[in-house]
Amino acid sequence: MRQAGRHFLQIPGPSSVPDRILSAISGQVIDHRGPAFGKVGAQALEGIKTIFKTEQNVVIYPSSGTGGWEAALVNVLSPGDRVLMFETGHFATLWKTIAEKLGLKPEFIEGDWRGGADPDQIEAYLAEDRNHEIKAVCVVHNETSTGSVSPIAAVRKAIDNAGHPALFMVDTISGLASLDYQHDEWGVDVTVSGSQKGLMLPPGLSFNAVSAKAMAANASAALKRSYWDWADMVGPNKTGYFPYTPATNLLYGLNVAIDMLHEEGLENVFARHARHGTAARAAVRSWGLEVLCNKQGQESGVLTAVMVPEGHSADRFRATTLEHYDISLGNGLSKVADKVFRIGHLGDFNDLMLVATLAGVEMGLTKAGIPHNAGGVGAAMAMLENTQIAAE
Amino acid sequence: MRQAGRHFLQIPGPSSVPDRILSAISGQVIDHRGPAFGKVGAQALEGIKTIFKTEQNVVIYPSSGTGGWEAALVNVLSPGDRVLMFETGHFATLWKTIAEKLGLKPEFIEGDWRGGADPDQIEAYLAEDRNHEIKAVCVVHNETSTGSVSPIAAVRKAIDNAGHPALFMVDTISGLASLDYQHDEWGVDVTVSGSQKGLMLPPGLSFNAVSAKAMAANASAALKRSYWDWADMVGPNKTGYFPYTPATNLLYGLNVAIDMLHEEGLENVFARHARHGTAARAAVRSWGLEVLCNKQGQESGVLTAVMVPEGHSADRFRATTLEHYDISLGNGLSKVADKVFRIGHLGDFNDLMLVATLAGVEMGLTKAGIPHNAGGVGAAMAMLENTQIAAE
Amino acid sequence: MRQAGRHFLQIPGPSSVPDRILSAISGQVIDHRGPAFGKVGAQALEGIKTIFKTEQNVVIYPSSGTGGWEAALVNVLSPGDRVLMFETGHFATLWKTIAEKLGLKPEFIEGDWRGGADPDQIEAYLAEDRNHEIKAVCVVHNETSTGSVSPIAAVRKAIDNAGHPALFMVDTISGLASLDYQHDEWGVDVTVSGSQKGLMLPPGLSFNAVSAKAMAANASAALKRSYWDWADMVGPNKTGYFPYTPATNLLYGLNVAIDMLHEEGLENVFARHARHGTAARAAVRSWGLEVLCNKQGQESGVLTAVMVPEGHSADRFRATTLEHYDISLGNGLSKVADKVFRIGHLGDFNDLMLVATLAGVEMGLTKAGIPHNAGGVGAAMAMLENTQIAAE
Amino acid sequence: MRQAGRHFLQIPGPSSVPDRILSAISGQVIDHRGPAFGKVGAQALEGIKTIFKTEQNVVIYPSSGTGGWEAALVNVLSPGDRVLMFETGHFATLWKTIAEKLGLKPEFIEGDWRGGADPDQIEAYLAEDRNHEIKAVCVVHNETSTGSVSPIAAVRKAIDNAGHPALFMVDTISGLASLDYQHDEWGVDVTVSGSQKGLMLPPGLSFNAVSAKAMAANASAALKRSYWDWADMVGPNKTGYFPYTPATNLLYGLNVAIDMLHEEGLENVFARHARHGTAARAAVRSWGLEVLCNKQGQESGVLTAVMVPEGHSADRFRATTLEHYDISLGNGLSKVADKVFRIGHLGDFNDLMLVATLAGVEMGLTKAGIPHNAGGVGAAMAMLENTQIAAE
Repeated sequence: MRQAGRHFLQIPGPSSVPDRILSAISGQVIDHRGPAFGKVGAQALEGIKTIFKTEQNVVIYPSSGTGGWEAALVNVLSPGDRVLMFETGHFATLWKTIAEKLGLKPEFIEGDWRGGADPDQIEAYLAEDRNHEIKAVCVVHNETSTGSVSPIAAVRKAIDNAGHPALFMVDTISGLASLDYQHDEWGVDVTVSGSQKGLMLPPGLSFNAVSAKAMAANASAALKRSYWDWADMVGPNKTGYFPYTPATNLLYGLNVAIDMLHEEGLENVFARHARHGTAARAAVRSWGLEVLCNKQGQESGVLTAVMVPEGHSADRFRATTLEHYDISLGNGLSKVADKVFRIGHLGDFNDLMLVATLAGVEMGLTKAGIPHNAGGVGAAMAMLENTQIAAE
Repeated sequence: MRQAGRHFLQIPGPSSVPDRILSAISGQVIDHRGPAFGKVGAQALEGIKTIFKTEQNVVIYPSSGTGGWEAALVNVLSPGDRVLMFETGHFATLWKTIAEKLGLKPEFIEGDWRGGADPDQIEAYLAEDRNHEIKAVCVVHNETSTGSVSPIAAVRKAIDNAGHPALFMVDTISGLASLDYQHDEWGVDVTVSGSQKGLMLPPGLSFNAVSAKAMAANASAALKRSYWDWADMVGPNKTGYFPYTPATNLLYGLNVAIDMLHEEGLENVFARHARHGTAARAAVRSWGLEVLCNKQGQESGVLTAVMVPEGHSADRFRATTLEHYDISLGNGLSKVADKVFRIGHLGDFNDLMLVATLAGVEMGLTKAGIPHNAGGVGAAMAMLENTQIAAE
Repeated sequence: MRQAGRHFLQIPGPSSVPDRILSAISGQVIDHRGPAFGKVGAQALEGIKTIFKTEQNVVIYPSSGTGGWEAALVNVLSPGDRVLMFETGHFATLWKTIAEKLGLKPEFIEGDWRGGADPDQIEAYLAEDRNHEIKAVCVVHNETSTGSVSPIAAVRKAIDNAGHPALFMVDTISGLASLDYQHDEWGVDVTVSGSQKGLMLPPGLSFNAVSAKAMAANASAALKRSYWDWADMVGPNKTGYFPYTPATNLLYGLNVAIDMLHEEGLENVFARHARHGTAARAAVRSWGLEVLCNKQGQESGVLTAVMVPEGHSADRFRATTLEHYDISLGNGLSKVADKVFRIGHLGDFNDLMLVATLAGVEMGLTKAGIPHNAGGVGAAMAMLENTQIAAE
Repeated sequence: MRQAGRHFLQIPGPSSVPDRILSAISGQVIDHRGPAFGKVGAQALEGIKTIFKTEQNVVIYPSSGTGGWEAALVNVLSPGDRVLMFETGHFATLWKTIAEKLGLKPEFIEGDWRGGADPDQIEAYLAEDRNHEIKAVCVVHNETSTGSVSPIAAVRKAIDNAGHPALFMVDTISGLASLDYQHDEWGVDVTVSGSQKGLMLPPGLSFNAVSAKAMAANASAALKRSYWDWADMVGPNKTGYFPYTPATNLLYGLNVAIDMLHEEGLENVFARHARHGTAARAAVRSWGLEVLCNKQGQESGVLTAVMVPEGHSADRFRATTLEHYDISLGNGLSKVADKVFRIGHLGDFNDLMLVATLAGVEMGLTKAGIPHNAGGVGAAMAMLENTQIAAE
C-alpha cells in the first residue's frame, strides 16, 4: 500500500535534497569542453572554497566520500608511511582500513566512540615520534557514527605543540556546511568532504581541500595514483575544466547549493544546526534515554545518536518507525550495532521538520515498546520556542 | 534571508503537490489531436470517474474551481430560474453570488457557518415550493471556509422526501479524494470539483460530474454558454479528446494522481483524513481553543478552522507562524475574517506532517502571545499512537 | 516499439516547451493569498504587458485560448449586439460560432482562407453602418489554420477612416511573441492570446489585454458573466493577486518565458520567425508545392500551411511522417481538411530544428508517395546560409 | 543574447539525456541502507547485465569512465606487470598512461588512428611472449577519438590462437548500448564502460563487467586498491546494496535507461546507430571531405570523425558552428588536434536529429569558409529514405 505524504529521510546523510537543487541537477548535460562549461566549472571550483573557508585549491571528484578519503592519502603519502589516526567511531575506523589497504601503516589512538579526538593524546603521541616518522595525522571532524565532533583547531595546536611536521588531514564529510569549518584558519592540509550531507546534494561528488604544504608533498608522494591525482586537476581547474569528464549535473546542483548556503548565511546555517542539536538532545533526555556522545561541547549539530535501553533492539525500533511513520533513521554501526539509532538533523532542515522527526521517534518508541517517558517532543518545542533564531 | 527546509503549505488547498506529480506535469507537451494524446485523455476521463464514484460523464475544464461552479449552473439552468442554496460559509456564498451574476435567482437558507447544510430545512423549503419553481438545490459538501461537512446523502433524501424534481448540485471542490464522495449512489446531478485539493495537483483544472438527468437538462437550459458547454465535450471525450486545447500537462499529473489514490486505496485515503481531523481537533481542545464547526459528526477531515480568543488577531497569528516557522495557514474569510485560522490537513499528508503542522500552530500561539495551554501536539500524538491506521 | 530521440512537435501550437520553463512549472505550489505569491503574480501581470506592448491592463485566466475569446466578448457586449468579423479561416469561424452561442449577432465578411483580413472591405462595411449598430470589429491576427497574417494597424486605420466607434478586438493567440504585436500603438481595444504558442508554455492560460475604452464598455455590457469578468480582476491584480485560485505553476512558467523572450530580444524573436517562415516557403516552392497563403506580405512566420496535390491525402501524409520520422504536423481544418498540412515553426525554435522539420516533411513526402521535387531542405539551407541572423 | 531553441549536443558523449531520464535522476534521495534502496540497486545491477550481455558480475562505481579504466587494471594486476595495448587513438593512449602511472608496464602496438585494433598484430605479439609475461591485453572497442571500432571477437580469437593466458580487457565506454557488445560470448574478462554515452545518462557512473577468471585474478593481484576493489562490492551487491554510498540518483536514471533500451530493443538500437553512421559518412563524402576511419567495416555508428582540408582549422570551424547554429561538435584530440572534428550520433537520437546535425555541419562549413560541395545533407536524406528502419 502506498504511504501518503513525504518520507522523512532522517539518516545522517544523505540528507533530503531541496527541490531547487533537484531541479538544477535535472538540467540537460552540456559539452564539458565547451565554453559554457567553463563558467559552470569555475563557479563550482571558486564557490566551494567559500564553504571550506579556504583560498587554496579544492579538488572535486566524481566519487563517493570514500573516494575522497583515498584521494587524500594517495596524493601525499608513500608506501609504508606511518599515519596517526584517532578512533572516534566507525568512520575513523573505515578510513584506517583504507589506509591499510593502500599500503600505509596507520596507528590508532583508541577511543570509546563517545566523543571527538583528544588533542592531548595526539600531542603526546606525536611527541614520542622524535624522528618524525609519522607523516600524517588523520582526524574525523564530525563522526557520523556517533554524533561527536572533534576539536580541529585544538588538534592543530596539539601538532604544533609537539613541533611535529606531519600533514594534518581532516574528514569533514558529514560536518561541512553544517558545522563551522575553517580549512585555512585551522591549518589543515587536506580536508575531505562529500556532496550528500550539509551540501544538500545527492551522493556522487567528493572533495579534497589542499594546502600548499600538501600540494608540495604530492610531488614526492610515492603511492601510485591516477584518477585521484591532484597534479592532473590543478591545471584544467584554473579555467573551470577537468582532466576527465566531470559529473556535470551534480556540479549544476553544487552551484545552487553554494548559493543557497550563502543566501541563508553560513553562520546562520551553523547556528541552526547547533540549535537543532540542542533541541534533539533535550528530547532524548526527556525520554529518559542516553545520548551516545558524552563529552560536553562535542555533541554534534548534524546528528544525535541515541542509546536504546539494554535488552532492546535499535534496529527493530528503526524498522517500526519506518513502517508506521515513514521515517528513516540511521542505524548503529559495528561496535554499536543495534544498540543505537541515529537521528539526522542536517542539511536543508527547519524547526517543524525537527519536531516531526522527534515525533516519529517518540511515537515509534511507544509502538516498538521501548520504555521511555513521553514529552520529548514537548521538551524540544519548549527549547525551540525559547531560543532566538537568526531570522529574528 | 533564506529560510531553510521545506515550507509547510497547510492552507486548505492548494495542497502540497507530491514530487511524482510535479515530475509528471513537467513532461513535454504533445499534439492534443495526435494518437498519443488520445490515450492520455481517455485515461484521465475514465480514471476521474473512479474518484467521483460515477459511471456517468465527468467533464474536465482548464479553469479554476470557480469555473466549475459557473459551468454547473449555465449548463442546466435558464435566466431567472430559482435556485435553492444553503449558507454553509464563504464558498457557498460565493457560489450564490455567481448565480446572481449569471441571472439566476438564488435563495439562501441562512446558516451560522458552524456546520453543514441541514437536510430538514431543505426538505421544508422544497415542500413549500408546490409549483416546483425551484430548479436546482446547490449544496457545498466540504465548506472550505469553516471545516464543516454537509450530509449529501441526507440532502438527497430530503429532496426525495419533498417529492421535488429540482436538480441536485454539489460542490466538493475541497472534499473530493479526501472525504468519501459518491456521485451516483447519492443521486447527485452535477458535482463540481477542482484539481488543487485532494487530487494533489496544482490549480488549473475543474470538473463537472454529470448525471443523465442533468445532461438532459442541458438541452433545454437557456443560459448562454460556449466554453462551459457540456454538449461540445461529450463527443470528443468519447475517444479521449477535447473540443479545445486541454491543459495537457495537468492531465499528465491527473493520471498520476488517480494512480496514487488507488495505490493507497480510496477508503484508506478517507480514513487517513478522518484520523488526522480527529487528531487536529484533539490538539485544538487541548490548547483550550474552539473549533469553528460545532456540529458533531460534521467536522471535516480536510481542514480544521480554529477560533482565536476575543481580542486577538488570527491574521497576525498567521503572519507570525509564517515568519517564524515557515508554515502557511488559511485565513478566516468574510464573516470570520481575522477571527479564525484554518489548518489544512488534506492531500498528500501523513502523521509526521500533521505533528509538524500542529507544532507550528502551537509554537506560533506562544510566539504571537495568544493565550492557550501547551500540550496540543502531545494530545494529537497520543491520539495518533492509539489509533490503527490502514497500513497495520 | 519505443521511438528513439526527440519527438518533433511541429504543429502550430502547442509549441515545444523549453526545459527551463518545464522546470519552472514543476515548482511547488504556494499559498495564492500569501506574501510570496504577490511577487509572482505582480511579476507576471507586469511582465506580460511588455509582450503585448501595452501599458494598460492584461487579464490572465486559467483557461484555454477559447476562454479568452469568450471573455473578450462577454466583457464588452450585450445580447443581440452586432459584431463584424472577418473570415480568415477556421479560427475566425470558431470565434464567430462562439459569438452566436453567446447571443450576439456576428456578421462575416467572407474570405478565401488564403490571406489576412482586408482593411478595405472592413472600412466599406463599417461605412455602411451609419447608425453605428456594430459594436465590435473582431479580427484574427495570425490565422493558425491558414498561416496568414492580418494587417492589424491597417484595420485600425480602416475603422478610423470609417469614423466608426466600434471596439476593435484582435485574436493573436498564435501570433503573440512570434510576430510583432502592439496593443497600444495599434489602438486595439481587446487582444486575446494564449500560453501555448509564442509564449512557449503548456496550454492552460489565456489573456485579454484591455484598453481603457474596453474597460469602460465593461461597465455597461449586459452579457452575463462571472468567471470572465474583468471587473473582479482589476482590484486584486493591482497587488499581484487574483479573485480566485490562479494556475500558479503556469504563472511560474510565464515569468520565465517573459524573461527568455527579453533575453533574446523581442525584435530578434520576430526576425527569427520571419526568417524561418521565408526558409520554409523556399522549401515548399522547391518541392513544387503551393503555400496556402497567397497574399504576398501576409505569409506567417509562425506556421506554413502547404497544399497537397489533388488526389492526395494530407492526413495520410501526416500519419506517415509521424510514424516514420516522429514529427507531428498540423492538420487541415474544416474547409481545407485533408487538403493541407501545416508546419509549425513557432516558439523556441532555431535553424537546425527548422532543417530537421523540413527534412521530416521532405522524407515524408517521398515515403507517402506524394509527387514533389527533392531539394526543399537544400533550398531552405541556402536561404538560411545567406541571411543574417540577429546574433551576428 | 539568448539563443533560441534546443542546443544540439553532438559531441561523441556525453550524449543528450532524454527527459524521462532527467526526470528520474531528479527524484528524492533515499536511504541507501533501507529496504526501498535494495530494490533500486538490485534492478540496476541485474539490468545492466543485460546491456553487457553477461551473466557475470557488473560492478558499478560512482566515478567517470576514467575511474573504470583504473579499476579494471588495479583489480587484476600487480606492480610491474606487462600489459599489451593497441594504439587505436587518444583514448587508448590515455589508458596506457594510466597503466604507467599505476606502476604497470604497458606495451603499445602502434596504430595510425584510422582503424580499430588489429587482431593479427596482437596474435603475433602474444606469440612472441613465450613466458606469458604479458598479463593482460587491453583494447578499446569504440575509439571515441577516431570513430573506429575494433573487432573484439576477432581479438579474442587472436589471443586464443596464440594460446596466451592473458586477461582480455576491453574499453567500450563509448560503444556500449550503441554498438553490439557481448561480454560473455566474446570471452572478455573485464569490460569497462560509462554512463554518459549509449546509456544516455549524465556522467558520473562507470562499470566493470567481470569474468570469473578476472574475479579469480583479483585475489592475487598486488596493486593496492580500496575504492575500486571488486572484492568489497560483490557481497553487498548480491542484495542490491553497495559498500559505500552509491550515486543514488544516477542509479534511478540507469534503471530507466535500461528500460528504454529494451523498449526499443537492443538490436534495433544497434541498427539505428549503424544506419546513422552510414548516412553521416554519405554526407561527408558528398561534401568531398574524408572520414578519419579508413578501414572499411570498422567505421563507428557512434560518431564520425571528419578531416578538414589542409590549411583549415577544425577548431575554428567548431567555434563557428557553435556560435551560428548552436551545435557542439567534438574536437580533434592530441595527434589530430585541430585537424578533425567529430560528429556524435550516439544515444537517444533519430533521423531528424541526424539531418539537423549534418545541416549544422554543412552550413557551418560554408560559414567558416571551408571548401566543400553542397549536398551532404541531401545525400544523407536519400540514404535514410532508402533504408528500412526497424519500425517498419
